[in-house]
Amino acid sequence: MEALLKTIKTYIALSAEEELLVQSLFTERHLDAGAYFLEEGKVCRHVAYIQKGLVRYFINQDGNERTMYFNSEKEFVSYYPSFLSGLPSDKYIQALEPTELFVITRERLQHFYQNIGEGEKFGRMGIEQVFLSAMRQLDSFYTDTPEQRYRQFLLSYPGLAQRIPQYYIASYVGIKPQSLSRIRKRIVEKR
Amino acid sequence: MEALLKTIKTYIALSAEEELLVQSLFTERHLDAGAYFLEEGKVCRHVAYIQKGLVRYFINQDGNERTMYFNSEKEFVSYYPSFLSGLPSDKYIQALEPTELFVITRERLQHFYQNIGEGEKFGRMGIEQVFLSAMRQLDSFYTDTPEQRYRQFLLSYPGLAQRIPQYYIASYVGIKPQSLSRIRKRIVEKR
Repeated sequence: MEALLKTIKTYIALSAEEELLVQSLFTERHLDAGAYFLEEGKVCRHVAYIQKGLVRYFINQDGNERTMYFNSEKEFVSYYPSFLSGLPSDKYIQALEPTELFVITRERLQHFYQNIGEGEKFGRMGIEQVFLSAMRQLDSFYTDTPEQRYRQFLLSYPGLAQRIPQYYIASYVGIKPQSLSRIRKRIVEKR
Repeated sequence: MEALLKTIKTYIALSAEEELLVQSLFTERHLDAGAYFLEEGKVCRHVAYIQKGLVRYFINQDGNERTMYFNSEKEFVSYYPSFLSGLPSDKYIQALEPTELFVITRERLQHFYQNIGEGEKFGRMGIEQVFLSAMRQLDSFYTDTPEQRYRQFLLSYPGLAQRIPQYYIASYVGIKPQSLSRIRKRIVEKR
C-alpha cells in the first residue's frame, strides 16, 4: 500500500486522514500467472494499482490473439471504455506473472473523487497520463514501421522485454516472431 | 458563449459568478476555411471550443497528408500530447469551413481548474470523453475493415459526411477515393 500512496502523492497532497481513507477504499487482490483481470463479454468493474507483476491486454480476433498493451509495477490497470461506460469489454486483461494488485470499484472511485480534497485533480491528471500513452500508440500505428514500433516498445516499456514472451511482443508489434528475431538481430548489430 | 457555458454545465454546476469567470478566461477567435489552428513543429498552446465550423487533424508523411480525426460544433479541439507536454506538434489542425472558436491557454485552464468549484471534475470528465473517443479509433485500426471503418466514421461523425470532402474521408479510412466510392455504393445498395 506504501507504493500506491507514494504514486498518488506524486500528483496531489494527502493528509494523514486522507491516507487512511485511500487505504480503506482499495482492496488487495492476487492474480496467478495466466489468470484474468478481465475477460471478453464481462464489464470491467475495477481500476487496479499494480504493486508487483505484469499484465497484457489482448483481443481475440476469430481465434487469433492480438496483444495490444502492457502494464506493470506502479501503473494503474483498467479497460476504461468498459469501466467508464459499464458496457461489456471486447478485450482481455491477463496476468503474465504472479501479480499483486490494489483494486477499487467504480463507486469507491467516485467516493475518492468526492472526499479526497484534491481527488478530482488526481483523476484528471491520471487520465491525462493514460490518454497520452494511448495517443502515442495510436500515432505509432499510423506512422511507424515494425522496427520503429519495436524500438517504441523498448522505450515505452523499459525492462519489460526480458519479462514478456517474444511471441506476445511480436503480436504487439504486429509481426511474426521470426520477423521480430530479425529486427532484434539488426538492432544488436547496429550498436 | 452561451453554447460553451451550456456544454460545461452538462458536466458540472456553475454559479453566476463562475459563469462570468469562464467568459473572462476564453477568447473569441475566427479561422477562415483552410487556415491552421496548429502546424507541425509548433507547440499547441490552446484548447478551443467550436462554436461553429469544422476542423481536421492530419499528419504530413513524406509529402502525403494523412487525415486522422475531425472535430465540429460543440466539441473541444486541441492536440493534447503537445498541449499537455509543451513539446512541438507533429500534427496539423486545419479549419475546413469558416470556424468560430473560443480559445483558452494552458495557464488560464489551470486557473479554471483551481478557481471553479468543480473545475477539476470538469477537466477529469472532459478528458475521459476525449480518451474514450481516441480509444474507439485505436480499436478500429486494430480490428476493422475499410468498410467497417467508414461505417464507424458515419456513426462517430453524424452529419459530417456531407460537409467533408470525400478525399479527406478516404484518407481517414485509409483507402483511395475510388475505393471509398465503391464502399459507398455498396452501402447504398444494401439499404
